[in-house]
Amino acid sequence: MIDETHAAARTSWVTSANGHPAFPIQNLPLGVFSPVGGSARGGVAIGDSILDIGAALEAGLFSGAARDAAEAASGRTMNPLLEAGPAARHALRRRVGEILDAASLDASKVQGISARLLHDAASSSIHLPARIGDFTDFYAGIHHAHTAGSISRPENPLMPNYKYVPVAYHSRASSVRPSGGTVRRPNGQRKPPEQAAPDFGPCRNLDYELEFGIWIGEGNDLGAPIPIAEASRHIAGFCMLNDWSARDIQAWESQPLGPFLAKSLSTFISPWIVTAEALAPFRIAQPPRPSGDPAPLPHLNDAADQAKGCFDIDFQVLLLTPKMRAAGAAPHVLSRSNAAMLYWTVAQMVAHHTSNGCNLQPGDLFGSGTISGTTPGTEGCLLEMTRGGRNPVSLPNGETRTYLQDGDEVSFRGTAHRDGYVSIGFGECRGTVTEALPAG
Amino acid sequence: MIDETHAAARTSWVTSANGHPAFPIQNLPLGVFSPVGGSARGGVAIGDSILDIGAALEAGLFSGAARDAAEAASGRTMNPLLEAGPAARHALRRRVGEILDAASLDASKVQGISARLLHDAASSSIHLPARIGDFTDFYAGIHHAHTAGSISRPENPLMPNYKYVPVAYHSRASSVRPSGGTVRRPNGQRKPPEQAAPDFGPCRNLDYELEFGIWIGEGNDLGAPIPIAEASRHIAGFCMLNDWSARDIQAWESQPLGPFLAKSLSTFISPWIVTAEALAPFRIAQPPRPSGDPAPLPHLNDAADQAKGCFDIDFQVLLLTPKMRAAGAAPHVLSRSNAAMLYWTVAQMVAHHTSNGCNLQPGDLFGSGTISGTTPGTEGCLLEMTRGGRNPVSLPNGETRTYLQDGDEVSFRGTAHRDGYVSIGFGECRGTVTEALPAG
Repeated sequence: MIDETHAAARTSWVTSANGHPAFPIQNLPLGVFSPVGGSARGGVAIGDSILDIGAALEAGLFSGAARDAAEAASGRTMNPLLEAGPAARHALRRRVGEILDAASLDASKVQGISARLLHDAASSSIHLPARIGDFTDFYAGIHHAHTAGSISRPENPLMPNYKYVPVAYHSRASSVRPSGGTVRRPNGQRKPPEQAAPDFGPCRNLDYELEFGIWIGEGNDLGAPIPIAEASRHIAGFCMLNDWSARDIQAWESQPLGPFLAKSLSTFISPWIVTAEALAPFRIAQPPRPSGDPAPLPHLNDAADQAKGCFDIDFQVLLLTPKMRAAGAAPHVLSRSNAAMLYWTVAQMVAHHTSNGCNLQPGDLFGSGTISGTTPGTEGCLLEMTRGGRNPVSLPNGETRTYLQDGDEVSFRGTAHRDGYVSIGFGECRGTVTEALPAG
Repeated sequence: MIDETHAAARTSWVTSANGHPAFPIQNLPLGVFSPVGGSARGGVAIGDSILDIGAALEAGLFSGAARDAAEAASGRTMNPLLEAGPAARHALRRRVGEILDAASLDASKVQGISARLLHDAASSSIHLPARIGDFTDFYAGIHHAHTAGSISRPENPLMPNYKYVPVAYHSRASSVRPSGGTVRRPNGQRKPPEQAAPDFGPCRNLDYELEFGIWIGEGNDLGAPIPIAEASRHIAGFCMLNDWSARDIQAWESQPLGPFLAKSLSTFISPWIVTAEALAPFRIAQPPRPSGDPAPLPHLNDAADQAKGCFDIDFQVLLLTPKMRAAGAAPHVLSRSNAAMLYWTVAQMVAHHTSNGCNLQPGDLFGSGTISGTTPGTEGCLLEMTRGGRNPVSLPNGETRTYLQDGDEVSFRGTAHRDGYVSIGFGECRGTVTEALPAG
């Protein structure tokens, strides 16, 4: 639903929000933060600041449904708000927008207490926004699946199930972390083809994966699938997700049950939940399936989803090496991609995931799978960009990379845009590789 | 550590415990239950009764470390006790044993208030004992891996990594359920070889998998592996686990990322945590690796683990069909197996799982993988027993089964025994298949 909360003319009395690349008043993403010296609590990102939802409650700025929603969003996790569903999120969004609107009747009164309501985002700690029950990683980036598959199976890059099944695997919830930290290079079993037996040591082929993250709101009961036409009701919001991947460990461990330690070393996310409501204007039609592709099976086939199930969100992957950092250089844009490159919509993911009766819970997280395009410079990971490490990438300062080196910082940017609307973004999904522990 | 809590001469004033097949005073497993009309709370199974830990606390029966442990074990989940580690579990075990001991000084005083302390197990609801963070399913049953592999790959049944990597996959935590309920036959995508394209409908090849379950106690920090010599400190207890499996869905969906919806329909466990302390007498040496097998890599190789890393636990799989139930027949023992059949120890599982820095959390659950022997009648699932559905199993009443039919009840029994010690068991892991929902 596109409504007045998206109006391009709105500005905030929080002046850093106006023209902010990620968090103008049209976004209002939800998260959990600790201000300097304070405890963890719910907040809304607005420009360079964070609105403290509990402080706004204490100031009496909420009533009715918005008050209930604000209470659910004021604690150490957003799970209660996620569970409360879309009406609660929308009531909160509408009222927070009024509170922060430069033109609202309350503006001068609220500005007078802004010292109580607002915290500086840069000096706050930003936490995971929710307690993640289960983390499911899809494989919906068809160009990634094709390119990655062609490296190991040139004759048969896409598996026969790919265009029928929104392929996914259960991944590790405990090691999901918010943007900004370090990821330690893992040790693991590696068996290059030239070795007769594996050994144990530091991953040599550490990679990132650019993914779109999906936050589940209302859950479903075990044994009660969510029909595709009702899927959007269960999708609360979105983030960017870096599925750090240890390619050499993955190649050796994955048969026959899929990736395990190659993925559980850590997964980073942008920590603000950009709500489904905020992204409503940026939904677009599914591109028609290429000629010859099968139609989705009936339980994955929905006209409304085809009409607006995709998102027009531009992503960038940036790399900053230690040498670039020492020289004061800016991060280098390694690749650019777009969420519309995904073969399956988020509604199809929800319908598929629950089609066997599996229960989703508020705070479950999905990854989309790596989002890549079809042309050079649109690859969502180094495995694709370097064709399995064979073609190193050249950086502007003369360095090259096949896979990540210690000290390398990878960051993602994501921006949703549409003519006539103010662009919104996802904030930061950034992490730096640190050296492996001694292997034994 | 084997100590006086295991003494065979001990009996309880709870007379149903003496000679009880699962819960004599030598066991004292931990769980969460609701008595009739009451709320969920922590308890200890003793014979046909459950000791209410909170009621025993209120009666002043605990002090010191045992009191702290009892407080951690009295709530709606055992996670606080799991987090508190082995010393807390042991203090609780020792004091609960004293409280329930027929020969203790307290016995007559405690018996006098037994109406407050004890609840009838059969009329109580038994819940999951902990909030499960992540559920990891291993593949450590080498005979299962070999037989299952030989059905799809006769020339190469075991993957090259099998004897180096304790193969595992992330599975679904939200759909783990305690014994006693129903499991709905899932719908899903099926593509038999004779069909050109998949369709969506009820699973035709619904199976059980007999597994040993492992409860994680103390966790580790992300990036800080648990060395194998310290693994036992992190293993709190054990259960039986039925990893319901939809074989036809699995065959179609699993490439290239492993099983997904085939496993998330539900996983059943015996709901009592049989502690590592209770099972101490039943630990045995790892059988020597067959000649020609590689030694475990150093990080998985530990002399103490080889000396007592396995368990002598007998398991049975029982089937009760609707016809058998109608005729008043007892469940039929389909197969018998033993935990010593596992190729990898639980300490090797913990060391492998964390070797990349992955963090475990209190209340994480592992499945061992299907436990099968090498001879007919020792298969841990129908896939093996029927050789992929080709050889139906005959039941005593003349019925046959390839896979499970609606109304079939599958239950597991598990008993640990050793000369000179009182046998202990796991209670019940039982579930009944119900018909699929309409598929469209």
